[in-house]
This record gives sequence, structure tokens and C-alpha cells, in this order.
Amino acid sequence: MKIVSGMRSTGKLHLGHYLGVIQNWEKLQREYESYFFVADWHALTTKYDKTENLKNDVIDVVSDWLACGIDPNISTIYVQSLVPEIAELNIYLSMVTPQNWVERDPTLKDMAKILRTKEGANSQISYGLMGYPVLMSADIMMFNAEAVPVGIDQVAHIEITRDIARRFNNIYKTEYFNEPKPILNECSLICGLDGNKMGKSFQNDIKISDSEEVTAKKIMSAITDRSRMRKDDLGHPDECEVAFKYWKIFADDETVQNVRCECEKGTRGCADCKRMLGSLINEKLADVREKRRYYEAHKDEVEKIILEGSQKARSQAQKTIREIRNIIGMY
Amino acid sequence: MKIVSGMRSTGKLHLGHYLGVIQNWEKLQREYESYFFVADWHALTTKYDKTENLKNDVIDVVSDWLACGIDPNISTIYVQSLVPEIAELNIYLSMVTPQNWVERDPTLKDMAKILRTKEGANSQISYGLMGYPVLMSADIMMFNAEAVPVGIDQVAHIEITRDIARRFNNIYKTEYFNEPKPILNECSLICGLDGNKMGKSFQNDIKISDSEEVTAKKIMSAITDRSRMRKDDLGHPDECEVAFKYWKIFADDETVQNVRCECEKGTRGCADCKRMLGSLINEKLADVREKRRYYEAHKDEVEKIILEGSQKARSQAQKTIREIRNIIGMY
Repeated sequence: MKIVSGMRSTGKLHLGHYLGVIQNWEKLQREYESYFFVADWHALTTKYDKTENLKNDVIDVVSDWLACGIDPNISTIYVQSLVPEIAELNIYLSMVTPQNWVERDPTLKDMAKILRTKEGANSQISYGLMGYPVLMSADIMMFNAEAVPVGIDQVAHIEITRDIARRFNNIYKTEYFNEPKPILNECSLICGLDGNKMGKSFQNDIKISDSEEVTAKKIMSAITDRSRMRKDDLGHPDECEVAFKYWKIFADDETVQNVRCECEKGTRGCADCKRMLGSLINEKLADVREKRRYYEAHKDEVEKIILEGSQKARSQAQKTIREIRNIIGMY
Repeated sequence: MKIVSGMRSTGKLHLGHYLGVIQNWEKLQREYESYFFVADWHALTTKYDKTENLKNDVIDVVSDWLACGIDPNISTIYVQSLVPEIAELNIYLSMVTPQNWVERDPTLKDMAKILRTKEGANSQISYGLMGYPVLMSADIMMFNAEAVPVGIDQVAHIEITRDIARRFNNIYKTEYFNEPKPILNECSLICGLDGNKMGKSFQNDIKISDSEEVTAKKIMSAITDRSRMRKDDLGHPDECEVAFKYWKIFADDETVQNVRCECEKGTRGCADCKRMLGSLINEKLADVREKRRYYEAHKDEVEKIILEGSQKARSQAQKTIREIRNIIGMY
């Protein structure tokens, strides 16, 4: 069974990506024929005017994947725009996708709203942003994936892809395309240091590539139990907004139980608690960080992996696009 | 100076195409570096579900062009989908084109209306049809045309292309793209045999590839002066709905004057008049028809011209897309 999944080229990834997505990919790659791509075209849907760092961002994303255990020997790692056949498939799918299918996409409505908030009431989403459910379908259908690992909020997108695949098959009287099924990510959602959703633009994230010192320092800024003023006040771990949640993600049950007791009894203050938490997280990430430093120092190797993976993906895509052209009846 | 112009792959072309477009291209190709393409992707915007004859249609269109004097030794003749770099450029342009620019296109509104008339009130235009001003801009900008030969009704489209080119240049701080100017076709508009607009689907057309017999027969069915019942009634050439208009297109001034006199005096009946007209048209088209028969009998030669032209266009496009990727900052 084949799976396809991608991430936008947003630059260095954070623990939200690691725990929410990449760890899942890392497991899936051993069960499925896996295609993981950096979605640089999708990045343009919202950041067409901020492309100065696009190249480095791509290298950073792939370096993070490799550090987290995505293995180029068993998975195909590629950059979307290095497989331009996807743009041609995007054309064919555009022609069979009714306008109101793309307009109904809930994420699109959210994006349009955010855009208007950020850039003024008259700002318009682009034709390209509007079509991202079609481009995403082209990404998936290019490799005829049988399944797509997604978060719960993305299940609606896969539904559009299934609809488009079905419609294509009906129109051209073929069974060529699979209707891909979503594989829900089993993930521990990690919040940001301020208790909100972890995100690069909120500056509340811990990067996969952060040093131990930076991580420790960031953890010290994590919000805890706001009602606890002095270190020997009795604590309320369940009201601790960030630190105790991180303990639950990174520590074993016994440790979590100890942390709870010491907090509730007021025998360990928040600063101490976060110092220990920082050490634990650094310990858990030690292997990932070592690999991350290796790839940081060997960008040429990362670039080689990107090029080889993209070539592999492309020759597959060329074969597929020939077949699709045949099915449609193109010259 | 470069020009780009295209025609949808609708199959055998008629005299409206010849007089309205191709004759113009034939002149322009001697002044401009010319790119003429069969728009098979654009054909899919409205006929994605009628692709059985697409391949033959492409060959027919190019055979007609060649018969009408488009010279593959000085012009680049290619098929849109054989230059897939256009699909990639379409992606980049989509990202910088606000949704309301494509929605404002007047032709799009017409098409949506026709579609609803033909296929029911709920029928939806496709995402691809909606984006055809963007795809058309990619066609033109792929070869960085300085001018585009168009009919008066298409000037608005070129305006969108100019807007997109300007916006791309602004966003990426470049002067890479020209803002192409329209070259208005100097054309004699020819009506159909029934007096309406000549069109394949109205079955009122004379094909470039029609035989002399078929042409003569079709001309005999042309509408004339409806008030003239008998052949020796006095005629009213200015109320003759089709035949006299054809005379004015194909005959010299002296002949037109003679036809007018004989009609007005009632010395020649409509049947006779149309017999003469048929002969004249067949005579005028003799060279074109001879070449058309040649290419009909030598499809391999047509296919060779298509492939060579498309290869030439493609290697140009590959160079351009590399430059564009660089300007945007793609990996």
C-alpha cells in the first residue's frame, strides 16, 4: 500500500511537527511504500511574496525529517516542484472539479478570513490558494496513494480528493485512480510554551534543531500553575498550563506520578520542576539532535537525498502522467 | 518581436477561422518570431468529457494551418500539452492572481451562462474553466510574447495577462515579463450559410478541407434576398443575407459591381448567382485545398511537424522556467 504526505516548506520544524506528524510517518514508513514531500508550491499559496528563504527552508525541513528518523532508503523524500508532472495532473483535475467543490472547503474559508484580518477587508485570496484542494489531490493522485496520513482537521480534504478521483474515473470510464483513505495520526498534541497552539509565528515553539541550552531556557519560560506564587505553595498540576502537560508527554507514568506528588505537596517549586523537565526533554531528544547537528554540518548530503528522492519520484510520475494522458486521450 | 497565439483543438476548421485568424497569422509570421499552438488543455475546459477525437482534432487543426500557409520553417507550431512547463508556470501565476481578477472575466460569465442553458441551472463551471485567463496568460508569458494577435472581443483577456505580468514583476522585483500588447486581427468576418455567426456546432460552416463539390453544394444552400421569389424579380443585394456578402469577401470590386447590377436588374437569378459564387470560392481556395489534400494524405508529415515544433517550443520553455524558478527563489 502506498501513502503520500507532505509538509509546507516553512523552515525549521518544532516539536509539534515531530510529535504530531513526523513520529507517525516514521512508524508508517515501515508498513507502507511512503512518499513524503516538501510542499513548496503550497507554501506559495499564502507566501508567494516571501520567498527569500525558500531554498534554505526546504533543506531545513528535510534535515528535520531525517533527524527524526525518516529513512531515505525506505521512503521517497522529494520536493513538490521538482516533480512538475504534478502541475500537469493539476490541470487535468482542475477541468473535472466543479468550482463549488473547491469553494466549499472549510480551511479555505478560514484562510480567507485570516487573510482579511491580516491584510485588510479587501484583500483577496488568490486563484491558486482557492485551488489548493485540487493541487493537493494532484499530489496524492500522482502516486495513486491508497492512504494519506492526516490530522483529524484534514479529513475533509481527503474527502475532496476521493470525490475528484471518483469523478475522474467516472468521466473517463476507468478504474485508474484509487480513492485514498485517511489514516488518522496517532499523536500527542503538544501546546506551545504559552499554552496556545504551538506555532512558528506565535514564537512559542521549541525547534527540533534547538540546542540543549536554548531548549532548557525556553522550558524555563513555560507557563505553569498561575495560582502558585511561592515555590513552597501547594501546586495544582492539573491547572499547570504547560509544564505538567509536557511531563505527561515525555515522562513515563511513574515519573509523572512523582512530579504530581511533589507539586501538590509543595516540595518542589516550578523553577526546579522546569529545570528537570528541560533535562528530560533534552535527554529524550538527544539522538534526534545529534542527527540534526550532523545534517546541519552536511547540507550537501541532505541536498543529495532531496535530488535523488525527487528524481525517483519524478520518474514514477512521468510514467503515471503518460498513462493518464492516454486515458484522457491527449495527443 | 515575439507573438504567441493559439486555437482550441476543435477539429477541422472553417472559413471563419481562415479569414478571421489564420490569414492574419500567415502575414504576421513574416514580421514576427511566431508561436502558434493547439490549445488542447483549453479544449478540456469545456469538453473534458468529449475527448474521443482529441488526437485527430489536433492533426486536423495543424493540417488546416499548414494548408493556409503557416510555415513550420519560420513559425513554431506546437501542442500546448506537449509543453508541460506551461502547467508549472500556470501554478506560479495562479499564486499571484487574485480570485476576483479571474471572476471578472466577461467571457467566463458568458460561458457559465451557456453551460447553465445547456446542462441545467445547477451545472457548475469547473475550477479549470474559471482559471482559463491564468492558463492563457501562462501560454503567452511562457514565450514572453511582446504581442498577441486577437479579435476585438479578446482584448479584455490580454488586459488580464498584462495585469498578471505586471503583478509578477512587482512582487519579484524583476522586469522579466513583457506586458504583451494586442494586435487586432484585420479580418473580414464571414457569416455562416444561414446568416448567423459561422460555427462548427451551428452546421452552417464551410470547412477549409471541404471538397469543391461539397463547397458548391453548401453555397447553393446559402440564404439570399428573402423578398425575391422568382429569378427575374428585381433583387436587393444589400438585403441578401449571405451570398452577396460572400461576393464582397471573395471577389474584386469590379465583379462585385457587376453582381450588384445583375441582381438589381433581375437579369441573374439567385441559383445562378450562387453557382458562380461557388466556382469563385473554389477557385480562390484551390491552392489551399491542394495543400490540404496533401497533408490529409501525409499525416505522418503533419505529426513530424507537430513533434519537432513542440520540441523546439519545449526547449525554449525549459530555459524560461529555470529562469522563473530562479526569480521566485524555488529550490
